Amino acid sequence: MTVPADSLFGPENLPYGVFSPAGGDPRVGVRVGDDVLDLSVALGEAVFAEPTLNAFMAQGYERWVAVRRRIQDLLAGEVPAAALHPVGEVSLHLPFEVADYVDFYASEHHASNVGRLFRPDAEPLLPNWKHLPVGYHGRAGTVYVSGTDVVRPSGQRTGPDGPAPVFGPSTRLDIEAELGFVVGTGTPANTPLSPDDFPRHVFGAVLLNDWSARDIQAWEYVPLGPNLGKSFATSVSPWVVPILALAEARVPLPGQTDPEPLPYLAESAPWGLDIELTVRWNGQEVSRPPFREMYWSPAQMLAHLTVNGASARTGDLYGSGTISGPGPAERGSFLELSWGGRDPLTVGGEPRTFLQDGDEVVLEGTATTRSGAKLGFGEVRGRVLPAR
Amino acid sequence: MTVPADSLFGPENLPYGVFSPAGGDPRVGVRVGDDVLDLSVALGEAVFAEPTLNAFMAQGYERWVAVRRRIQDLLAGEVPAAALHPVGEVSLHLPFEVADYVDFYASEHHASNVGRLFRPDAEPLLPNWKHLPVGYHGRAGTVYVSGTDVVRPSGQRTGPDGPAPVFGPSTRLDIEAELGFVVGTGTPANTPLSPDDFPRHVFGAVLLNDWSARDIQAWEYVPLGPNLGKSFATSVSPWVVPILALAEARVPLPGQTDPEPLPYLAESAPWGLDIELTVRWNGQEVSRPPFREMYWSPAQMLAHLTVNGASARTGDLYGSGTISGPGPAERGSFLELSWGGRDPLTVGGEPRTFLQDGDEVVLEGTATTRSGAKLGFGEVRGRVLPAR
Repeated sequence: MTVPADSLFGPENLPYGVFSPAGGDPRVGVRVGDDVLDLSVALGEAVFAEPTLNAFMAQGYERWVAVRRRIQDLLAGEVPAAALHPVGEVSLHLPFEVADYVDFYASEHHASNVGRLFRPDAEPLLPNWKHLPVGYHGRAGTVYVSGTDVVRPSGQRTGPDGPAPVFGPSTRLDIEAELGFVVGTGTPANTPLSPDDFPRHVFGAVLLNDWSARDIQAWEYVPLGPNLGKSFATSVSPWVVPILALAEARVPLPGQTDPEPLPYLAESAPWGLDIELTVRWNGQEVSRPPFREMYWSPAQMLAHLTVNGASARTGDLYGSGTISGPGPAERGSFLELSWGGRDPLTVGGEPRTFLQDGDEVVLEGTATTRSGAKLGFGEVRGRVLPAR
Repeated sequence: MTVPADSLFGPENLPYGVFSPAGGDPRVGVRVGDDVLDLSVALGEAVFAEPTLNAFMAQGYERWVAVRRRIQDLLAGEVPAAALHPVGEVSLHLPFEVADYVDFYASEHHASNVGRLFRPDAEPLLPNWKHLPVGYHGRAGTVYVSGTDVVRPSGQRTGPDGPAPVFGPSTRLDIEAELGFVVGTGTPANTPLSPDDFPRHVFGAVLLNDWSARDIQAWEYVPLGPNLGKSFATSVSPWVVPILALAEARVPLPGQTDPEPLPYLAESAPWGLDIELTVRWNGQEVSRPPFREMYWSPAQMLAHLTVNGASARTGDLYGSGTISGPGPAERGSFLELSWGGRDPLTVGGEPRTFLQDGDEVVLEGTATTRSGAKLGFGEVRGRVLPAR
């Protein structure tokens, strides 16, 4: 089978997803060029006739390697037409059942921007930030696949006249452009993983939009962190890019020297990933968040999650937190892009700060390998519907 | 079948659990006196041969009512011996598969005590506390059944000489005595539940011990809330007391007049539950936390969880937060009982503040109905093992 050399979905990528052909049941496929390869047909194994990737992910690293090699061998020859569907003719589903969902806060630029916005008279970073990847648990049951509309959430926010809150639709609905990492094989209780265990336990990565109602969040979040300001919806891309593919996109971390990470977070060769996202607001590109600028690495996040003895499970999802680079057009939230609403962006010729009903946001992502190849993540798309 | 009149597990209680008889598979049972009634045998339905309560819970309120009536009818006659097992001869399992786990902070006495301990120069309650039930998502994958040992977690804590943290086993390992509420039938996205929807959606209640490493929590929790200080273990009792039984234990809420709750949190007749817990530390009773003193009700917590459009699912678990009453011997954590470690308790003749290796904590709970009947929750037991 021939895939155009400039495709973002060539044989060095091979992201997994779950799709239904017209009239068919959900099953596991791999994106190849503009087609989906039906693994339940091409490889004929029951694990690929499942409606999620979980059973395959749970088979473990050696299987991930072997199946990837089989698919690459298959693609080197003629692929039976019955195993291929144009991607535009299938329905794409949430590719995995989410076990626990954790969201980190791993971009120094993002955390500093938020600190400057919310605590203008203090140090932008809190004292713990450079010592551990700060994170919190989110709502696994409201992780949705790309294309799911997002109804504007209602909730409490600080009232205009002092401390009594008002209730109503959020007036500061925002996005957070992130990557999410999907655990393939977990670890039992009291068996922490080290950063070097990452490739054998984490199956793949997705684009993630952590929709955020800033007004609800600002009122509720002390002292136990975000809850309803985030729990209404988190969107992910339908394609899970294998960590085996992303190994070729490793880059050095930008630097963790002051302070040095504690030993449980130390890696033999600390690495990030050369992945760039784009954020489109009603079709217009407004930002290019660079994942290579992240302070904490995905492997360090995994080690942190389990160092206290917490188990990890197949289907655990953890987000990187908003990806923001040093430049003003590299910020991954409208909170930062509009500097808390003070500096509107021009979108469609109009000044804009937070999301209006009917707006659509699309995140895309591309990894660049050491040889210069481009690996696509596809997109995560969501439209804002009015509050009910 | 005759159950002693003073049993905490008479026909007005009938808590559900999952058990294995010697050599048998897990199945659903109901505790009756000192026996477990095997519902897979007594009622002969496949849903009770499942290894969790989830499938039965998902059948909904009308079924919960009907099955409870059938069991009560059955107990009024002769129960076949093959359907009964002495509770001491079976293994008890985690009774439900946890979907999302949320922990609230609904005791005014607890929140005020914590405020006084951590912010001695400020108002004990933060401005949002009386306007909404503050809560956060916890780790569903580390909810364990009573009897599971708890390995002392390791993590970062503030160092003795300034801001650089040290890593090691927690030195301030604590408990939180709580009730947990189990969602039987959830709600789709963008379909919020009102407090009055509670009885038709929440299946039952359990005892819950939210083990907490105070030193890890204190260092990590800004600005996104607790994470590793809590995520290593949460223990629940093996018996799920039906909300249908607890309807008889309703009492008025102690008072929400200043401020009045917002309309989405308002109830036609706001109610709490007359449930008293006991906390035993190495066999010695150290506290009797009264659930009837809670500020926010379980029905308000459910309404809050879904008001932003978040869906809820069968198996969602939400904890009340630490139950503390106004009296010094009614506090539900060692943090409060020892006043941050300043005022040690005498346990086994020795001054004690936080948990030592080998310690065992047992929470018990009893509801009192309007007619004076006592409904037992059983216990949630856990022993502390040394850090690995």
